Amino acid sequence: MDLKPTKPLSGFIELLPAQQRCFDECARRMLGVLRECGFSMLDLPAIERAEVLTDKDNWDEIETQIFLFQKGDTKMGLRYDGTVGLSRYVAGHLNDLTFPFRAGQFSKRYRGERAQRGRYREFYQMDMDIMGINSLSTNYDAEIISVIGRALNSVGEFIGDNFVRIGSRPFWDALFNWLNLDADQKKAVFVLIDKKDKMVPAEFVAGIADTVADAKKEKVILDVFENGYTGVRGKSADLDVAIAELNDFMQKLDVMGVKNATIDLSVTRGLAYYTGLVFEFGLTKFPELGTAAGGGRYADLAGKFSKTKIIGVGAAIGFSRIFVALMESGKIDLTQFESGTDVAVLVMGDENMPYAMSVLNALRDKKVPSVAYLDTDKKFKNQIEYADKIMAKFSMIIGEDEVKNKIVTVKDMATGNQQALPIADAIKLVK
Amino acid sequence: MDLKPTKPLSGFIELLPAQQRCFDECARRMLGVLRECGFSMLDLPAIERAEVLTDKDNWDEIETQIFLFQKGDTKMGLRYDGTVGLSRYVAGHLNDLTFPFRAGQFSKRYRGERAQRGRYREFYQMDMDIMGINSLSTNYDAEIISVIGRALNSVGEFIGDNFVRIGSRPFWDALFNWLNLDADQKKAVFVLIDKKDKMVPAEFVAGIADTVADAKKEKVILDVFENGYTGVRGKSADLDVAIAELNDFMQKLDVMGVKNATIDLSVTRGLAYYTGLVFEFGLTKFPELGTAAGGGRYADLAGKFSKTKIIGVGAAIGFSRIFVALMESGKIDLTQFESGTDVAVLVMGDENMPYAMSVLNALRDKKVPSVAYLDTDKKFKNQIEYADKIMAKFSMIIGEDEVKNKIVTVKDMATGNQQALPIADAIKLVK
Repeated sequence: MDLKPTKPLSGFIELLPAQQRCFDECARRMLGVLRECGFSMLDLPAIERAEVLTDKDNWDEIETQIFLFQKGDTKMGLRYDGTVGLSRYVAGHLNDLTFPFRAGQFSKRYRGERAQRGRYREFYQMDMDIMGINSLSTNYDAEIISVIGRALNSVGEFIGDNFVRIGSRPFWDALFNWLNLDADQKKAVFVLIDKKDKMVPAEFVAGIADTVADAKKEKVILDVFENGYTGVRGKSADLDVAIAELNDFMQKLDVMGVKNATIDLSVTRGLAYYTGLVFEFGLTKFPELGTAAGGGRYADLAGKFSKTKIIGVGAAIGFSRIFVALMESGKIDLTQFESGTDVAVLVMGDENMPYAMSVLNALRDKKVPSVAYLDTDKKFKNQIEYADKIMAKFSMIIGEDEVKNKIVTVKDMATGNQQALPIADAIKLVK
Repeated sequence: MDLKPTKPLSGFIELLPAQQRCFDECARRMLGVLRECGFSMLDLPAIERAEVLTDKDNWDEIETQIFLFQKGDTKMGLRYDGTVGLSRYVAGHLNDLTFPFRAGQFSKRYRGERAQRGRYREFYQMDMDIMGINSLSTNYDAEIISVIGRALNSVGEFIGDNFVRIGSRPFWDALFNWLNLDADQKKAVFVLIDKKDKMVPAEFVAGIADTVADAKKEKVILDVFENGYTGVRGKSADLDVAIAELNDFMQKLDVMGVKNATIDLSVTRGLAYYTGLVFEFGLTKFPELGTAAGGGRYADLAGKFSKTKIIGVGAAIGFSRIFVALMESGKIDLTQFESGTDVAVLVMGDENMPYAMSVLNALRDKKVPSVAYLDTDKKFKNQIEYADKIMAKFSMIIGEDEVKNKIVTVKDMATGNQQALPIADAIKLVK
């Protein structure tokens, strides 16, 4: 019989135990931050009705990107982000939730497209959203940025410092209106800005030139990437409103204690959802990772699910994107995660099992991560090798003498030192 | 425009925030037990190649039960248990892992069948497996049972006591051989035993009678459900080996400190995987839940992926099955999970934001779950209502006076008592 393949499908992540421990520890810390900041964690289905995932009018475009399937008469698929399910959930639970509602999510998402370098087909994102009915202060936008900063700082020992760049959708809308671009031109310029980082500069310039077909307009747009809003200040009332909002927002961030933010109008967060301020986090030490987290404000989150107007600000942290990429390229030191066990209990002979098990249970009762080597017919050499390989900090060796004298022999696996101790003292030593 | 549906697909779970907090707390405690017991957590892909999920010879049977789809030339599907991915992973990482290898998993699984009462199409299971190469002491089988007991006890305040019943696959194999049943009869009797709990007794008896078509054999089999192995002791060498193994195992469990185990030969764990001892946990208070956890020993876990013989003992806890079912039927008291926030910071006027934010940041730095109501234009009445609705234990009210005097007014939301305190003292009070 042919053996089946042991590799996962391309684009799917599979970590070794030490990597997984690092991944889990980073998640634990960041989720702790979300809880401290009052976010209610939600764990929504990974499978949604196809009509929830996508609108009929963009079905073809999106079908190549989503995992879709049919059961009975129902077309369904795997979620590609956290927002679509959240919109549905909040619209369906308007009376069960208190607004402003703070939702946190940490879950797997799926993209059906062929895997590219650094793009996964199954990946974790950590989302946070604050939603209000009919109104929501931009103070919350500033707070979300502060919370993401806290979350990233909680794992700073692994990923270093972070910074955040603030953009504005209303600024570009006002600029395009002042430049009299038509709807197609607006969309095309937005697509170009969104892809700018992945293009060579000449290609981007040519794209803008082709789209606006007017040298002056081209110059105005390109100037924003050089000089920000300075060149268009005072050109229209809408532009000035957008610029004032941006500057105001920078002050709010300052008030929140966010000191690593700058205005960067090239940040637009693509075409989806956002209608207000937008932002992107990067990691100072790892520019090659690109965006570590991003988000912004949406004027009408759940319009497709409810007539109630839900205004929100939300963000997603590219959790797998950050941690899997950094671990796989060896940029996170995994030394502290190599061992999952503090104590290995080694049992010399089946007749000593009852005593050994009382030791093991006592360790576990005291929450000391511990295992026993229970193939009691194996030689001592095999047993101590096992303790070494799992990188246990201590072995507790139990043979006839230990049982007789109600002690354990504790071996410090780093120094090789051994001492015989009563159980309670041995547990104190290893804790 | 028609609104899209807000309900999840049938068979998919969606919890309210308080339920989710209970679910997460139970997971946290039980995963803590797995870590204390030295299990390495794995987080494997939810999507596997179709050929990994199923063999060609049972494709039709299983296609109705698995979510299958195709991308490009590749047929794939969603995992229905944790064992199939684990087998692949371990076979692919024989040189990266130390054996006996202890793997823990806590992940979503999927069943494509139409949702029945209490059956979910997406659900969490918590798995633990111990795997050895070529050999593995049955001490580990006893340990797995001890670990499941610890995990269930860690959430005993919600689910009450648990018990475990031990069955034996070799016992039935030996019995069928002694009765001279042919292969079809063996399989049919096994299927009947597996479904016994869901059948009316007469139906079960009739099924056995039809299958074995021999009154004496029928009587022998049915007697096992009345009197255990007593009637067939000494009938064949294989039977006596199986009976001795069972009794031996009960002693091992006793040594491990497991005091809630009984032999119950009606436990067989269906047709899949298992080749040795098998077991099922139930909850004393909730017999209607049926099996809370189950598992057993398999002689050749990864035979389809590797020529190396991996012997294992594994179990899965029906995590969603237990907690979602009990929460949805109101059998878990959620009072302690109603609030996710200790402190609501209420800000009277935008001009007091900088001070309020320093208070909020100080609370969060001390890991006090806290939120601020940042729609500062809303009336005090709205703000205190919000604090009430999110069931914050305290409000910290910040207006002009508080800023001037560098204090906060702390309101105990249960008693209504208010006092003005310096920030540091206020944080001490609420911690």
